[in-house]
Amino acid sequence: MDYQAILNVIETQLKEVDFGGSVPDYIPELAAVPKDKFGMHLFWITGDHYAFGDTEELFSVQSISKVFTLTLAKMYAKENVWKRVNVEPSGNPFNSLTELEREDGIPRNPFINSGALVIADILLTHLDDPKTELLDFVHHITGDRTIAYDENVYESEHQNGYRNYALVNYMKALGNIRNDVEDILDFYFHQCSLAMSCRQLAKAFMVYANKGRILETNEDIIAGKEAKRIDAIMQTCGFYDEAGEFTYRVGLPGKSGVGGGIVAVHPGEYSVAVWSPLLNKKGNSKKGMRALEELTELTGSSIF
Amino acid sequence: MDYQAILNVIETQLKEVDFGGSVPDYIPELAAVPKDKFGMHLFWITGDHYAFGDTEELFSVQSISKVFTLTLAKMYAKENVWKRVNVEPSGNPFNSLTELEREDGIPRNPFINSGALVIADILLTHLDDPKTELLDFVHHITGDRTIAYDENVYESEHQNGYRNYALVNYMKALGNIRNDVEDILDFYFHQCSLAMSCRQLAKAFMVYANKGRILETNEDIIAGKEAKRIDAIMQTCGFYDEAGEFTYRVGLPGKSGVGGGIVAVHPGEYSVAVWSPLLNKKGNSKKGMRALEELTELTGSSIF
Amino acid sequence: MDYQAILNVIETQLKEVDFGGSVPDYIPELAAVPKDKFGMHLFWITGDHYAFGDTEELFSVQSISKVFTLTLAKMYAKENVWKRVNVEPSGNPFNSLTELEREDGIPRNPFINSGALVIADILLTHLDDPKTELLDFVHHITGDRTIAYDENVYESEHQNGYRNYALVNYMKALGNIRNDVEDILDFYFHQCSLAMSCRQLAKAFMVYANKGRILETNEDIIAGKEAKRIDAIMQTCGFYDEAGEFTYRVGLPGKSGVGGGIVAVHPGEYSVAVWSPLLNKKGNSKKGMRALEELTELTGSSIF
Amino acid sequence: MDYQAILNVIETQLKEVDFGGSVPDYIPELAAVPKDKFGMHLFWITGDHYAFGDTEELFSVQSISKVFTLTLAKMYAKENVWKRVNVEPSGNPFNSLTELEREDGIPRNPFINSGALVIADILLTHLDDPKTELLDFVHHITGDRTIAYDENVYESEHQNGYRNYALVNYMKALGNIRNDVEDILDFYFHQCSLAMSCRQLAKAFMVYANKGRILETNEDIIAGKEAKRIDAIMQTCGFYDEAGEFTYRVGLPGKSGVGGGIVAVHPGEYSVAVWSPLLNKKGNSKKGMRALEELTELTGSSIF
Repeated sequence: MDYQAILNVIETQLKEVDFGGSVPDYIPELAAVPKDKFGMHLFWITGDHYAFGDTEELFSVQSISKVFTLTLAKMYAKENVWKRVNVEPSGNPFNSLTELEREDGIPRNPFINSGALVIADILLTHLDDPKTELLDFVHHITGDRTIAYDENVYESEHQNGYRNYALVNYMKALGNIRNDVEDILDFYFHQCSLAMSCRQLAKAFMVYANKGRILETNEDIIAGKEAKRIDAIMQTCGFYDEAGEFTYRVGLPGKSGVGGGIVAVHPGEYSVAVWSPLLNKKGNSKKGMRALEELTELTGSSIF
Repeated sequence: MDYQAILNVIETQLKEVDFGGSVPDYIPELAAVPKDKFGMHLFWITGDHYAFGDTEELFSVQSISKVFTLTLAKMYAKENVWKRVNVEPSGNPFNSLTELEREDGIPRNPFINSGALVIADILLTHLDDPKTELLDFVHHITGDRTIAYDENVYESEHQNGYRNYALVNYMKALGNIRNDVEDILDFYFHQCSLAMSCRQLAKAFMVYANKGRILETNEDIIAGKEAKRIDAIMQTCGFYDEAGEFTYRVGLPGKSGVGGGIVAVHPGEYSVAVWSPLLNKKGNSKKGMRALEELTELTGSSIF
Repeated sequence: MDYQAILNVIETQLKEVDFGGSVPDYIPELAAVPKDKFGMHLFWITGDHYAFGDTEELFSVQSISKVFTLTLAKMYAKENVWKRVNVEPSGNPFNSLTELEREDGIPRNPFINSGALVIADILLTHLDDPKTELLDFVHHITGDRTIAYDENVYESEHQNGYRNYALVNYMKALGNIRNDVEDILDFYFHQCSLAMSCRQLAKAFMVYANKGRILETNEDIIAGKEAKRIDAIMQTCGFYDEAGEFTYRVGLPGKSGVGGGIVAVHPGEYSVAVWSPLLNKKGNSKKGMRALEELTELTGSSIF
Repeated sequence: MDYQAILNVIETQLKEVDFGGSVPDYIPELAAVPKDKFGMHLFWITGDHYAFGDTEELFSVQSISKVFTLTLAKMYAKENVWKRVNVEPSGNPFNSLTELEREDGIPRNPFINSGALVIADILLTHLDDPKTELLDFVHHITGDRTIAYDENVYESEHQNGYRNYALVNYMKALGNIRNDVEDILDFYFHQCSLAMSCRQLAKAFMVYANKGRILETNEDIIAGKEAKRIDAIMQTCGFYDEAGEFTYRVGLPGKSGVGGGIVAVHPGEYSVAVWSPLLNKKGNSKKGMRALEELTELTGSSIF
């Protein structure tokens, strides 16, 4: 199949279409991104790259980083992560406090804010310097040491992070947080501020499409079984309160971020990253979701 | 891979193990089923069958029938099913009324009770005789005309169906039910009472593993794209409030019923049915889930 | 104090003012009532009457009847009513199903629909013919045997009562309903259809202002302590999700109905009924609440 | 009526009875209070005092202070308090975050934690030094300048106040908090730590029984109408999720604290404070509630 041709079709069909949507207003850096940015990068299991548009430009990965921190927790945490966070899809928005009350401070899954904050807490317990080690991890799996945190985004997140402060204090009250609240949030706001391009994200996520291995070196990052399970969690929990819709329409495990990025994988075949800043009400990129839907439609290649 | 050998391993490992669990007490016929029943039947895409245990014995399919009725609705309904029911996983038990209130009478998905009741309502609108046509459909895709409703189970469901009466009346109040309440429930309690064996279920679900086609005849039942989408909904919504756990542990689209049955598919490879009556608190067969976990573990073959 | 003069002031101030609001659209008979109806009737403990406007005209008492049925249950039920229903204000609309789920089928109080349905169930268990006995009770405490059910309203309630069907079926599923669902609803829709005037309601509620006694005859209907407690429940639960607002603004125990009526009592002093059909979003008469606020403002006589 | 004799009866009946219950474990100072402390102090409108037991001993007033801060807000805030907090009873525990989500950050009433935190925020905006001015206010209405904050209790509250940190951050995220989170909590934890005796509390609350005036000096503290309204809010919201039960059983406006104190008023007649440290599951003093129930039972004098 000619993936570049298919990507060209997607670009042609969608580039000029106005799907509406909005950018997050609580982070000025995200609100300032030009709304017509659009790029897609597919990394095939043979090592080939296919792309169009703004795929070399850095954007804020936001929640996509939750996949990396979960991976680090599975690699290094000397405790059972699943006693601290569940793997069930959430029936509520990504930053909801309601569910926590009903479920005694155990977040529904590691890909909503509360769950990622517990994962951050776990990393603070088991790593010496999570901020550096997260960056090292991303450098390692992408082979690209230029990737960095965006300190302006970090500052904005910090200054407007009241809801995340609420979440972590609430879970501390409910007994599911071990470390200092400020330390956890410092790490969490940093992970959200990670700036990457579609190309870099596609490279990073090949690990999850390739049984836990770096494609070029065949180095095992995590066990194949664990990679499959992270894919499974992406499938059911990767899109906040819209995981069902994404699974139905696209049929690939994936993870989105409010920076407008989405990464998805077809295990054994490819990883793909797409970027378009305008979000729907659930916080997922409108054009990005549509582009991925076109991809699996045109290739006939969802995992189902 | 020697699937029969793998099934034999699963039988040996699990048959005598007591995983605990309980049978539903509100349906005497389900409560009376011998708790040590255990069988598994795998139908491979080449037409081969592998099985162990009580795979020829009939049991009450219960919620598994929701996959059939959704399929019928997609085949025959001259209205957009997705305006009446969503495709998002539910964060609540399968018979919850709470979510409906928040979401204006639109059920979260077609595989919880409220959603299946809306599908039943849709079938009543668009089919002449849904009860007969559901049976015809199951006869057709299994090639087995002996399959029937269990009238005793139907009677018990009817007599103890207050919660389902509540759900359908509530949705009628909220404007999402068109037909007579009694007619809907008569059909719904019948669909739940369908009695099938693991062998019959595995045959029926091959349609969903085989792009919507009957394997033996190559007859198209639904479009391949629709079959994929039903698989996707099974993945995110097939296990009530435990869809994430099943996806994580087993990694296959599937559907369970409180009769202790579970059916799962590996698109392009196989369909598999397992039966063990004792349920966990979420309403899914404990030994059945474990058997399927062993299957994808031993074969290394989840969809992820 | 010259109560008639005060009532005249209230009439003058409010009669022509348009407070907005709406009539219930699910009961055609209520929707058809002229929206400018307005009357107030105060029955003073000395036996004096003060009134203005449409105080002799019959309207549908709706939820106001819940005070009568609770009284009957306290008089005749050979079981502890408070094991079947609580006395806490509800944080949700009057017809909510959500709270029931959280609280195992025990309604928050007897003045929301679910609670009144449990009271109806209790009356069916302990009275021979609740429909007749409720009418006898109202005839007795008002001394007016013309009061009757409005069968047209009853029919409309019945035909549109899906939400009440849902509530009673749901509580039956949760184990808090003993009698046949249809029998309970037949009685409940009848009690709602009771047609009374402001004058009749003021007379009836004097029992609650007069320590449980009929004013003219000094006959004890219920113990003074019980009358006080019913007043207390009216104070905290008489206005659905607006009991706090009514207590804050008016400062009297009372009960409203979606027919636009409100009855309130000042224990030891007076009972007062007001009627104006247009309701606010919580289901309480807008002009009625305002009239009662003026009354306690002008007389300086709330219970606080 | 011989109030001292009635109080003696209450003491005799209840002093030795073990009603069970527990002390809050998250504040060591409260957990360390001898569980058999019991005292009651009634301050009659003529200036007479009646008392028994430990009525001169200081204890932590906790949530009772919320009545004082609401009063200060009504006295000094140059903004409409009721745009920032409602007056409806809460259907949830006093420290719930769930309701806030549903109601856009507007707390249900000023006597649950979230509401008191908004009031604290309002005081920080409109007073120069709320901590000093609250103490001045309490000194003034009691005529007792020895009343002080308990710094040990304050410290414990601060160290274990994660849930309150969550609440205030959450409301800040929802736009209903103006001042610095730490400043608000510093004031809030101080107000909770106020140490007073039953005698002092009864004196303080005479203002609410006496139309807003200090009894001895006839000085107006707040308008009589405002005092009535604060009484009304105490009636519907003073006992967390048990306001209905207290109104039903006792029939007086009142406010409880997790230090085991309860203060109630009979407008125009008396104020009364009771103290017993063991709490029921809703956070109200078990023996205290019972003592007040006996009081209104024996005197026949609820407000209803």
